[in-house]
Amino acid sequence: MEELTLYIGNKNYSSWSFRPWIALTAAGVPFREHLIPFDFPAGNPLFRDISPTGRVPVLHHGPLRIWESLAIIEYAAELFPDRALWPARRDDRAVARSISAEMLSGFRALRGACPMNIRREKRRISLPDGVMEDVERISAIWKECCEKSGGPYLFGPFSAADAMFAPVVNRFDVYDLVRDAEVLAYMEAVKSHPAWIRWCEGALEETWIVPEDEA
Amino acid sequence: MEELTLYIGNKNYSSWSFRPWIALTAAGVPFREHLIPFDFPAGNPLFRDISPTGRVPVLHHGPLRIWESLAIIEYAAELFPDRALWPARRDDRAVARSISAEMLSGFRALRGACPMNIRREKRRISLPDGVMEDVERISAIWKECCEKSGGPYLFGPFSAADAMFAPVVNRFDVYDLVRDAEVLAYMEAVKSHPAWIRWCEGALEETWIVPEDEA
Ligand SMILES: N[C@@H](CCC(=O)N[C@@H](CS)C(=O)NCC(=O)O)C(=O)O
Ligand SMILES: N[C@@H](CCC(=O)N[C@@H](CS)C(=O)NCC(=O)O)C(=O)O
Repeated sequence: MEELTLYIGNKNYSSWSFRPWIALTAAGVPFREHLIPFDFPAGNPLFRDISPTGRVPVLHHGPLRIWESLAIIEYAAELFPDRALWPARRDDRAVARSISAEMLSGFRALRGACPMNIRREKRRISLPDGVMEDVERISAIWKECCEKSGGPYLFGPFSAADAMFAPVVNRFDVYDLVRDAEVLAYMEAVKSHPAWIRWCEGALEETWIVPEDEA
Repeated sequence: MEELTLYIGNKNYSSWSFRPWIALTAAGVPFREHLIPFDFPAGNPLFRDISPTGRVPVLHHGPLRIWESLAIIEYAAELFPDRALWPARRDDRAVARSISAEMLSGFRALRGACPMNIRREKRRISLPDGVMEDVERISAIWKECCEKSGGPYLFGPFSAADAMFAPVVNRFDVYDLVRDAEVLAYMEAVKSHPAWIRWCEGALEETWIVPEDEA
């Protein structure tokens, strides 16, 4: 099969790149990674050449382009059915896709106020309206899924649903947004996953600073 | 198999309800429809009882709840693999899911300024910044897909991707947003689909008025 190439942005900041990257890496899907940094005030003009939306992530597979984090994950799940990107049980897959789509379409207050920032030292900031509602809803999702599955991840083993929330684990952590023990236990499980650790090592080596994402 | 029940909002206004409804109806997936109107200033408190997000659409299947338009479509596609909700070719499915996720996560300027409104008479409004960029991007998607497939729909036969854009067909129409002949031809194909016609008949019979959605 032709090689898959995943184009991503800065590992420190590019939350949408992180999602398919950690989903594919954790599942052992083979792909080549191509990092194009946001090193211009408005993203990077190069994104236009590689992606129909001018945004990353985008997956190239021969002449085919697949964009949008969730669509990239679905494509990898179709190509590698034995790699279990989604949970094995159909009911679990349905809930995993519901929460993944909720992440993709929502939580704008949290996303706007608290940009993903892997290198950031833990420090609180003052939070605009709506952020704590997002934190509560996400905490409720994580707790309900982990209680039902028995953990350590949302549906037992690490799946695409955990990948879709991985950047939120960083946000909850570095902006110090939660106290709940079950939520913190889930975050620890994610942060100890080898794929998480590998992404963060990459982010630590980067030197680009994006001022707008330093909240 | 236990019956599927799809909870939806007002047919005249509920763009997110329209998407899975038209996808399932066009594909011939059997389901029971349960309409709960927005007849309160802030949605409807009943949504809380039926949906984990307090929003519609939500699909009930026995004790299982599936929310988010796209996740409902994926679940129906899994339950009824012979109903071809997604395009038959894998490459087409990848693009269909890319544009569906782009719809789910984006086009906020258009969605905010031009609410879906089935009963509205065609009339222009003054458009805030960003709306025409959304119109251009969506037009480009539709033209590229229809040119490649030969039409009449994005991937030949009507699919979930057409369903995800169905409310946009209404917006382009009633706010008179496009002149391009190919775009208008695609819109005509959608508006002549029996499932579209059935939804609109329902909307015409409704009497609820939502002032915030009367732009
Ligand atoms: N909904 C998209 C979001 C993609 C996105 O916003 N990517 C950001 C980086 S995290 C980007 O490319 N921004 C540059 C720009 O918008 O110019 C997805 O899920 O992939
Ligand atoms: N991303 C969701 C959006 C759902 C949504 O916003 N639904 C609206 C009706 S179209 C709703 O229930 N609004 C009531 C509220 O937010 O209180 C989906 O794709 O299903």
